[in-house]
Amino acid sequence: MTKEKRQLITPRTLKGFQDFLPEMMLPRENLMATCRQVFRSFGFAPIDTPALEYSEILLGKGGNETDKQMFRFTDHGDRDVAMRFDLTVPLARFASQHLNELGTPFKRYHMAPVWRGEKPQMGRFREFIQCDFDIVGTTSVNADIEIAMVIHEVLSALGLEAFYLRINNRKVLNGLLDKLELADQSAAILRALDKLDKVGPQAVQTEMIEQAGTTAQQADAVLQMAQIKGTNDEVLKQVSELLEGSEIGQTGVAELEKLVKTLTKSGIPEKRLRIDVSIARGLDYYTGTIYETFLEDLPKIGSICSGGRYDNLAELYSKQSLPGVGASVGLDRLLAALQQLGKIEPVTTPAPVLIALFEEDRLADYLSLANSLRKAGIGAEVYPEPKRLGQQLKYADRRGFRFAVIIGSQEFDAGTCQLKHLQEKTSEEITIAELPMRLAELC
Amino acid sequence: MTKEKRQLITPRTLKGFQDFLPEMMLPRENLMATCRQVFRSFGFAPIDTPALEYSEILLGKGGNETDKQMFRFTDHGDRDVAMRFDLTVPLARFASQHLNELGTPFKRYHMAPVWRGEKPQMGRFREFIQCDFDIVGTTSVNADIEIAMVIHEVLSALGLEAFYLRINNRKVLNGLLDKLELADQSAAILRALDKLDKVGPQAVQTEMIEQAGTTAQQADAVLQMAQIKGTNDEVLKQVSELLEGSEIGQTGVAELEKLVKTLTKSGIPEKRLRIDVSIARGLDYYTGTIYETFLEDLPKIGSICSGGRYDNLAELYSKQSLPGVGASVGLDRLLAALQQLGKIEPVTTPAPVLIALFEEDRLADYLSLANSLRKAGIGAEVYPEPKRLGQQLKYADRRGFRFAVIIGSQEFDAGTCQLKHLQEKTSEEITIAELPMRLAELC
Repeated sequence: MTKEKRQLITPRTLKGFQDFLPEMMLPRENLMATCRQVFRSFGFAPIDTPALEYSEILLGKGGNETDKQMFRFTDHGDRDVAMRFDLTVPLARFASQHLNELGTPFKRYHMAPVWRGEKPQMGRFREFIQCDFDIVGTTSVNADIEIAMVIHEVLSALGLEAFYLRINNRKVLNGLLDKLELADQSAAILRALDKLDKVGPQAVQTEMIEQAGTTAQQADAVLQMAQIKGTNDEVLKQVSELLEGSEIGQTGVAELEKLVKTLTKSGIPEKRLRIDVSIARGLDYYTGTIYETFLEDLPKIGSICSGGRYDNLAELYSKQSLPGVGASVGLDRLLAALQQLGKIEPVTTPAPVLIALFEEDRLADYLSLANSLRKAGIGAEVYPEPKRLGQQLKYADRRGFRFAVIIGSQEFDAGTCQLKHLQEKTSEEITIAELPMRLAELC
Repeated sequence: MTKEKRQLITPRTLKGFQDFLPEMMLPRENLMATCRQVFRSFGFAPIDTPALEYSEILLGKGGNETDKQMFRFTDHGDRDVAMRFDLTVPLARFASQHLNELGTPFKRYHMAPVWRGEKPQMGRFREFIQCDFDIVGTTSVNADIEIAMVIHEVLSALGLEAFYLRINNRKVLNGLLDKLELADQSAAILRALDKLDKVGPQAVQTEMIEQAGTTAQQADAVLQMAQIKGTNDEVLKQVSELLEGSEIGQTGVAELEKLVKTLTKSGIPEKRLRIDVSIARGLDYYTGTIYETFLEDLPKIGSICSGGRYDNLAELYSKQSLPGVGASVGLDRLLAALQQLGKIEPVTTPAPVLIALFEEDRLADYLSLANSLRKAGIGAEVYPEPKRLGQQLKYADRRGFRFAVIIGSQEFDAGTCQLKHLQEKTSEEITIAELPMRLAELC
């Protein structure tokens, strides 16, 4: 390297972007590994697509808020390109392009970063990981049922218990709008209805009248249905009555009923499944089941896993109709939630054991011991320099190792060692031969 | 969605970019999971950094080939930004920025995509995943030893046996160049020497004379050392003799000796460690140990894991000196190698079992059965529609499921099922209760 003096460059990240240090990255990786394991156990297969695509592909129908937020530029070959802002548009492009090879039903998951140049705010970044899973190519509500099972299993696998899915079906609302002759205003009505929790029925009514052009009576009828509360059976009964004579509405009711009944029969506690006909999820491409997921103890954090059924994923790229259903785990929200619930340990090492290094001459013995622990499934690190014990233990504390193993030359010869329990601040003398089994017990 | 007719957009990816379909993505994810598991077992912690950085940060010293290849543009906030082209520069920036919080030794791994706008060619893409691991903040050769152990363990964990590490130490060459008074020409000499395998000694000698300005005698002396062959002990002995009187050269010899002896004593077969004083690895920032890794059966594929020791990672961003040592797993090469060696199954499902769906009325029973298999650690998928058995089995074959479970209403009542072994084209009748244990045996 050239030795000339040069101005130092200030190390910094771009506004809205963040580094992940080990303390945050370890639980993020663990969370992603859990999602992956659950998806795979249901037969979902991973895919990946490029971070960069032709802007034409990503812009799609155009005119969306996300279009303005895209990181878009001209590449070396004068192509108009952009960084993906979600994983749904790439899936649509991917499915259209490879459909013959993939066949249906096609079940995939995709965990990858996306980029949006939106105004950075508390907890929102310009780069974040999305974690989507979908079943494409079937209209069967059985697929909707499986998506709900996967959501339930992901949260259970994370050790969460106090959570519930809020479930709706867009056909219920469509049935009502049909009956009220408001089908053409559905997008504006959905937008208004989405705010019900936040602004209350009065404001929603006003917005429906002003923005969607409904009458006060029409708005009231929509609000009446949206405010139906009760057990799942009660809600279904009341909604079914309101939708009498609407074929699509009754289909929606029947799908909701099948979904909840089947899930309950296959082992999901009914208290974790709540039919709520008020949820609309603004996105107007949902056409059937809609999911949201909430933590009982952290309602303010919002839905940590949302999704729904759509009629035609790939309509921009293919004449072939591709219906599907899927959801997206909000990794960042879920990580924040697990942290608030005290389910994340503040450590910066993935290995529980630090082996202190005293005698350079016995280096191979320390390394062999570490290998024997790893073979027993226990992560172990050998400190790289024979520094003072105090310094090595300080390092162990700072990084959050749970155990330190201390062995000098005499102990090696005697076949014994000292095992320090760093959190409990206790220690025990045991033989080196016993160490792997003892640590396997403790870890 | 608007129903107007519109022109379809042709689904396609950018030149030099690729989609990963399940058949390729499954083994890629498995490979990454193995790397992650090994890194973690040695106490390496994961980090992540943004895909986009200030161009100033990434350009670093400037003038490199990679600078021209960067995807660089002006963002919404008029900032000059670029997509990272490797993980080393971001690590340097990251370490400088967070050093106080991280402390040393700092052991990290980082698996993430990088982007280079180079001319696409067979097997080289503009987007690819790098997989780096480093120990930063220690000059101890013990860290160099650990990096070699990690390389060895990653390949062993992948089920590979016929491989070896080629190891050199830059100090050996530096010692020789010192003795020959060629220290100032080292970069040009390294570049020439790197081609020894490809072009032979004659051409290398010519390049040294013409490009590095050496005499024929000097070039011969360099080549004489580079061509030393033999057992590790023989090579060390001959090199040590050639470097008599050079302190740095003898340090290099001693480090190589300690590395090989310690690794052998801690259980790595010596045949997997080959000291080779010809390898230079063009990058002139290496200052000590250098690693390359080859598969005996696929020498042409090149090194599948390479790296080395460097003196000062963060010199562009910080006054604090940050020595370190690390390596990078060539995931794409390794994946190609595993494929050529027949170690990758051509399947597109991560779950071994397909449960055929016959009786819609018993859906909850099929789903409960799938749950009980998953609880036993066996991935299982329920076909989403009650189609003809032939169609469901065709789907199972196409995706590479190993087993199909077939149960009708009567079988449910009798508590029995048919388990088809799809690869062997055999089947057996067993009770539903026995199924999880039987499949756990088979998987």
